[in-house]
Amino acid sequence: MPRFFIDHEPDGSVTLTGEAATHIGRSLRMRVGDELVLCREGTDYYCKIDTMTSDEVQCSVLFSRECANEPSLELTLFQALPKGDKMEFIIQKAVELGCSRIVPFISERCVSRPDAKSLSKKQERWQKIAEGAAMQSGRGIIPEVCEAVDFDKMLKLAAAQDMSYFFYELGGLSLTRQPPVGERRVGMIIGSEGGFSPEEAQAAEQAGLLTASLGPRILRCETAPLAALSALMILTGNM
Amino acid sequence: MPRFFIDHEPDGSVTLTGEAATHIGRSLRMRVGDELVLCREGTDYYCKIDTMTSDEVQCSVLFSRECANEPSLELTLFQALPKGDKMEFIIQKAVELGCSRIVPFISERCVSRPDAKSLSKKQERWQKIAEGAAMQSGRGIIPEVCEAVDFDKMLKLAAAQDMSYFFYELGGLSLTRQPPVGERRVGMIIGSEGGFSPEEAQAAEQAGLLTASLGPRILRCETAPLAALSALMILTGNM
Repeated sequence: MPRFFIDHEPDGSVTLTGEAATHIGRSLRMRVGDELVLCREGTDYYCKIDTMTSDEVQCSVLFSRECANEPSLELTLFQALPKGDKMEFIIQKAVELGCSRIVPFISERCVSRPDAKSLSKKQERWQKIAEGAAMQSGRGIIPEVCEAVDFDKMLKLAAAQDMSYFFYELGGLSLTRQPPVGERRVGMIIGSEGGFSPEEAQAAEQAGLLTASLGPRILRCETAPLAALSALMILTGNM
Repeated sequence: MPRFFIDHEPDGSVTLTGEAATHIGRSLRMRVGDELVLCREGTDYYCKIDTMTSDEVQCSVLFSRECANEPSLELTLFQALPKGDKMEFIIQKAVELGCSRIVPFISERCVSRPDAKSLSKKQERWQKIAEGAAMQSGRGIIPEVCEAVDFDKMLKLAAAQDMSYFFYELGGLSLTRQPPVGERRVGMIIGSEGGFSPEEAQAAEQAGLLTASLGPRILRCETAPLAALSALMILTGNM
């Protein structure tokens, strides 16, 4: 059933306008009487279309229930900025795989170092991609793509999670040796193409993060977050 | 250390020509005395460059050992042909994540149905991509991209593995409920954009394959194989 996110709690009926209304009418060719799911902050509202015009769709709520597709973990991906448009790819796939929040950051070996204006434009675009992926994959929330931060700020945010993994290509234990048992707010820190400097790895350890490995094969910086997310999801019964 | 695949067992010394020689000299700017790894069928040969010209590099073998990067599982990915160039992406990532063989196949809902000539050209290109990904990720073998087959032939090949998972969006158990315990040759079957028909799912079950789920979130056809591979690798201690 088609899913759309809404930004306010529906009060028996909901009026959709803008892109959602156009999409329902033109792309999906839905009609009066068809059913769809409107989703807000983890709750799915099952609705029926009552009336529709070219730019407005009115639905009534049939029933609501908690979205069953959200993982028990609240995973934040801290991703060092990769080159080109790889971040778009990472965000799309991370949202599909159940990530709850993405925090881009700049580390020592990042080649991509956009200025503040360009970053803010990118953030807007990334948020759109997260929303599209959330709709497509049946998520109950739209994961937030946060403002890009520097390495030190990222460490502070990661250390504030219940636990965070610092994925380092030169060391660390497998996730199977240090799974997130009972923790809910979990962070994963992934480097850019050049990985992390030894100083950064040391700073992460000093901040209390767990140094972790994704195995002996060298993963590209856009493959690593997907492997780590999949591994955490399966290890915690969320896949 | 740079890695190259060779196609014959080295006899004390090895002569590299063609692309490898050019890459060593021009791109990597290596010199006489530099060390590299030559790899063949799971064995790493640690070598030193003795002489080099613009199109030939001669190395002597210092020592050899089994490549430590190969997983204990021999995983075959049976992938229904997706649209566009997604197959290239899937092959690159699957090789990084430890897949041993990729068998493309055509299922009922495949939109992409290239003719034999086009498929053979694609296969060549895909094999090149597998080789590049194997080098980059430090694999001990070059995973083979096999000839594309039809659904029935794919089922036969999958059933000949020690065990095979048929990933079906409309059912099946989590991999955690049916992990590959002790099995070495494992198959994973992933659909194209439209997934599988109920008849195909039934045929897979009748062929003795395990129907499996990748969780409640809907994964794109290019995300699913990476999630499944990562999950199998972590569940079997290979990540």
